[in-house]
Amino acid sequence: MAGDMEIICVGNELLIGKTLNTNAQWIAKQATALGIAVKRVTVVADDVNEIAKAVREALSRKPQFIVTTGGLGPTFDDKTLAGIAEALKRMLAVNAEALAMVRKKYEAYAKEKGTAPVELTQARMKMATLPENAKPVPDPVGTAPGVQIDLEHITLIVLPGVPSEMKAIFSDALVPLLKQASRKNRFYDKSIFVEGVMESGLAPIIDRVMRDNVGVYVKSHPKGRESVPHIEIHFSVVADDAGVAGERLRRAVLQLSGLVGEVGGTVVYG
Amino acid sequence: MAGDMEIICVGNELLIGKTLNTNAQWIAKQATALGIAVKRVTVVADDVNEIAKAVREALSRKPQFIVTTGGLGPTFDDKTLAGIAEALKRMLAVNAEALAMVRKKYEAYAKEKGTAPVELTQARMKMATLPENAKPVPDPVGTAPGVQIDLEHITLIVLPGVPSEMKAIFSDALVPLLKQASRKNRFYDKSIFVEGVMESGLAPIIDRVMRDNVGVYVKSHPKGRESVPHIEIHFSVVADDAGVAGERLRRAVLQLSGLVGEVGGTVVYG
Repeated sequence: MAGDMEIICVGNELLIGKTLNTNAQWIAKQATALGIAVKRVTVVADDVNEIAKAVREALSRKPQFIVTTGGLGPTFDDKTLAGIAEALKRMLAVNAEALAMVRKKYEAYAKEKGTAPVELTQARMKMATLPENAKPVPDPVGTAPGVQIDLEHITLIVLPGVPSEMKAIFSDALVPLLKQASRKNRFYDKSIFVEGVMESGLAPIIDRVMRDNVGVYVKSHPKGRESVPHIEIHFSVVADDAGVAGERLRRAVLQLSGLVGEVGGTVVYG
Repeated sequence: MAGDMEIICVGNELLIGKTLNTNAQWIAKQATALGIAVKRVTVVADDVNEIAKAVREALSRKPQFIVTTGGLGPTFDDKTLAGIAEALKRMLAVNAEALAMVRKKYEAYAKEKGTAPVELTQARMKMATLPENAKPVPDPVGTAPGVQIDLEHITLIVLPGVPSEMKAIFSDALVPLLKQASRKNRFYDKSIFVEGVMESGLAPIIDRVMRDNVGVYVKSHPKGRESVPHIEIHFSVVADDAGVAGERLRRAVLQLSGLVGEVGGTVVYG
């Protein structure tokens, strides 16, 4: 759907719990702030079939954007482009533009270190081997370019897994597309903290505030215990006007605070 | 497949990037250590259809374990059990055993605070409303019980999203099942750090070590830059004997270190 995104993270290190998936959180946060609705995050292994399946499934749900991270490097376990090629039934081939980017990087590294030119080995060529009809996206930080594939109604953006590289390409290549997709819609939110009312006691209050403030999403996050409650209440709204959003949030916060007071709770503003 | 697991995390806070998904990492790490292969992590919104779809899809891939986290509390946005009921085409109904657990919790809270008994409101009853033929699992920390649903070849375990509660139920209810499933298989790993060789230069070395050490997985994690490399090399193996595993890892580390030395790199043991 227009304005929707799915994120696919590729990497065994995520599935063995070695690495915390900060990439998914970072991308989700940036996209959400720009008014994009992230619908799903999928983490799969460094396995061509697993990657291809996850990509095919995401394509079938037709989000406007599919963003992948990880699996773009020079080693055998970097399989994201092979998985995407399989999902799209496209051939993998050396992309001239990507090869020029990779070559330029290695020339710069050799110059930086004052060494002889670095040979473009098979492992290095791999980073320029893309599904056909894909567009390489310059990587201002690392070596392997990102990749953009424009399908009929879906834009597939393939980012590296190294956070500094992922963030740089995201900001350069994806942010303009996301802004265009969401127009002026942006995400606005506010948290307050409630004490003295159990989460189960807040439930009907939240129901009422949600009913009375259409478009404002209210979610409770218990930080203490049910019997000694300290509960974050997170209010959020997507709107194309900061003033309207602020007013909607203010009204919802005010109503909830009043109702909490009526049942003997106290509100701490975060 | 026997010994496989999928993790489904439910919560808008994960999809808007408000919360880092530490639960998925924690579960993946525990399960991996016990010799279980985590095949996929899926994050979906607080939406009955989205949850039901993710559960149905996971069921269709037939992992031995499906673990969900989040969406078990008393508020409107806690929808995991409704989603699972829909996926399994089972009715939701108040479970007598779960109700007794919830009632006991609120009796203890009232006693702890010296207040009158707490009424079992609709929001509180919700935490005892399970898909039919499900088994509540005591929550030693929080209020909402976990849930276990035994299907023909799949065990579905439903955990809360609050980390302390999730961890407690995981350890009590799931660890014995995982140990039984993986028999004596355990995960063993070791990291070393390579400097002075680019990741692209390590690629053929890793290929060779993988070829010569069947069963040992070797993955490079660049921590520096391609031109100033500092690369973690992570070796891992699943085996039913610690001695055998240690010996396999030792041999692979030794071979890789030798090959790195031959191309002028240095190895730092982590």
